Amino acid sequence: MPVNYATPAPDQLFPVAGVRLGTAEAGIRKANRRDLTVIELAPGSRVAGVFTKNRFCAAPVHVCREHLKSEGIRALVINTGIANAGTGEPGMETARQSCAALAKLMDVSAAQVLPFSTGVILEPLPVDRLKAGLPAALSSLKADGWHEAAHAIMTTDTVAKAASRKVGAGGTVATITGIAKGAGMIRPNMATMLGFVATDATIAQPMLERLAKEAADESFNCITIDGDTSTNDSFVIVATGQGKAKFESVGAPGWEEFKREVIAVARELAQAIVRDGEGATKYIEIAVAGGRSVSECKAAGYAIAHSPLVKTAFFASDPNLGRILAAIGYAWNNDASLADLDDTKVKVWLGSNGEETLVAENGGRALGYKEEDGARIMKAAEIKIRVDLGRGGQQAKVWTCDFSYDYVKINADYRS
Amino acid sequence: MPVNYATPAPDQLFPVAGVRLGTAEAGIRKANRRDLTVIELAPGSRVAGVFTKNRFCAAPVHVCREHLKSEGIRALVINTGIANAGTGEPGMETARQSCAALAKLMDVSAAQVLPFSTGVILEPLPVDRLKAGLPAALSSLKADGWHEAAHAIMTTDTVAKAASRKVGAGGTVATITGIAKGAGMIRPNMATMLGFVATDATIAQPMLERLAKEAADESFNCITIDGDTSTNDSFVIVATGQGKAKFESVGAPGWEEFKREVIAVARELAQAIVRDGEGATKYIEIAVAGGRSVSECKAAGYAIAHSPLVKTAFFASDPNLGRILAAIGYAWNNDASLADLDDTKVKVWLGSNGEETLVAENGGRALGYKEEDGARIMKAAEIKIRVDLGRGGQQAKVWTCDFSYDYVKINADYRS
Repeated sequence: MPVNYATPAPDQLFPVAGVRLGTAEAGIRKANRRDLTVIELAPGSRVAGVFTKNRFCAAPVHVCREHLKSEGIRALVINTGIANAGTGEPGMETARQSCAALAKLMDVSAAQVLPFSTGVILEPLPVDRLKAGLPAALSSLKADGWHEAAHAIMTTDTVAKAASRKVGAGGTVATITGIAKGAGMIRPNMATMLGFVATDATIAQPMLERLAKEAADESFNCITIDGDTSTNDSFVIVATGQGKAKFESVGAPGWEEFKREVIAVARELAQAIVRDGEGATKYIEIAVAGGRSVSECKAAGYAIAHSPLVKTAFFASDPNLGRILAAIGYAWNNDASLADLDDTKVKVWLGSNGEETLVAENGGRALGYKEEDGARIMKAAEIKIRVDLGRGGQQAKVWTCDFSYDYVKINADYRS
Repeated sequence: MPVNYATPAPDQLFPVAGVRLGTAEAGIRKANRRDLTVIELAPGSRVAGVFTKNRFCAAPVHVCREHLKSEGIRALVINTGIANAGTGEPGMETARQSCAALAKLMDVSAAQVLPFSTGVILEPLPVDRLKAGLPAALSSLKADGWHEAAHAIMTTDTVAKAASRKVGAGGTVATITGIAKGAGMIRPNMATMLGFVATDATIAQPMLERLAKEAADESFNCITIDGDTSTNDSFVIVATGQGKAKFESVGAPGWEEFKREVIAVARELAQAIVRDGEGATKYIEIAVAGGRSVSECKAAGYAIAHSPLVKTAFFASDPNLGRILAAIGYAWNNDASLADLDDTKVKVWLGSNGEETLVAENGGRALGYKEEDGARIMKAAEIKIRVDLGRGGQQAKVWTCDFSYDYVKINADYRS
């Protein structure tokens, strides 16, 4: 059960002019579930993406990077069940075949199709089943297919993740709608496993590419569930240019506001992934300030977010907060510049439900800290850890969840 | 229950001339358990230690570093229950008081005592209880106290850890005996939480200091349970000089052989910690070769060893081995030089009970790999993952354990 998150209703997901979505049951890994999605884009759409930095990156990620070198992308094809990662040259072949098969049915070229896969690593993609499912997916294409597509891309997710808004943009209105999936193997390092955001605005290609990177950095690149960077992380932004909003240069009226809204949609999706983290019972924001760089702040945030001891203490609602100090103390593993961190300058606060208490300062427990305050704050489903490193003016946030019996159960059982 | 480990019997732990050990129930955190240990060293003993690199390092670690600047150490005082870490200046004061109180009873100076603590972080050490327990600990001092001391330093350990051997050394015989504790918050980065090894050999101080570092690097610095580097990690070697073996220079006969045996004892203790890892049901050796540096090999080994997905798969005996590839793929997080790792050059083998199978090569599943082989190998309690990075001649090993429901249970309950 996700922490304070529910999938928006179908009518809360605004169609984006120029985008149609269709799904099918292809039986990729399991029968009787929608596991194949096609997203069709109108001619003239611009696309930008960011992808995993995992060195065992999946075959479809390689193919996406290749196809994004030229413009004119007309479709995305997405399967769940098999990640098509750790599959070597045969995996590249099946990814290419997926594109070619869809391209033929749509009468475009294979290079105009982007492939995405998610699921088990190291097993071959049954590409014939995927190809056999394409006609059904195409025949179900519709502009209001976002809700169904959000469901069809799930794996261990317990809820579908989607976000949508209409935003004022330079005197007109633009629509932004996105979906994402992911619940485990989540520590995106470029973007997360399958995030798709589309808008009907016109956006110049270089601006769209920077936007993809910036939105990922402010959203998917700030979350972690288990510290495992996936082989398949992909985040794609589509601008169909079918609406009235036009951003052909960074000086275009409304661009900054529009950008903020795209980032907000990406962040909503990223946070939904954490709220639905495998086995999650708590949603935790870690806000780190006072670093000499953003990297230092992220290093401390991730050290806390990845510590199994911190995560299990949160699961137990046990204010065993020394574990947070220990994690900050070894954060230099993530960024060597923290090797000279002065522990007497660090402050740590714990908060929930609008209440906040200073836990640690001067290298130890804050004089005013009371165990019963910590215990009460820890009981909430949403908790905020605030850290001041006391050595600079930079800051960063990391979102994560706790570590429960169910995380072990889900990951000990997954595949079986 | 530890994986294939039992504490040696009391008579298997050879006394070391010049060392006596005593324990007491001081009620530091809980009543009715031996939680205070004193190790008395004969005059002329030489001592060297390595300590945690955690920036929130515990007060006793600060004091140990200070006191090791001069020679003449005569005693170690060790408490469990409270780590005296994250305790600021008051914590430094209680650590100093512990030394002073023991020094007074022994008629030595406070600077001749090394303090060690293990337990909960961020809570004050009840130093009056510690002091009150010292006379009882002193009155129980005995040369064959190793077995009792190994028990008295435990926290969440389920078994006491000790190792002992007599070794030929330059035509004579030296005794080496050691104890260690630790089961969680284990990712030593200099040494682990409380490892003590003593020998009756005479060893020149600079050689002893290098030996402490080398033995730690080959043992405690190769293990991980949860990736959490403790605030209190301390590993100390004592050479009492009361035996016949003498190593006053690196050219001394038998020094290399003796060194190997000290490292073997340290490794036995370190591996015992992993076998008794919190909730562990499997003991896993990860041997990485073919790196351009030892650091690259350790980076890949730790990425695998820390992945919750890999660890839960081992708990389930599920050969979901793509997770190992994914971890190798993001190992550049630990050592940036792996950012150009060529995934098609990497090979991964899985083995147990003298059997080994090639799992992955050429960027994907090995042609000869059969799921039933992987499943059979995974069922064993001791498993070996072997990786060839295919880019150099260096190698390293990491020892770890799986991740079970009980890890969550133990760490969600600890303190309560």
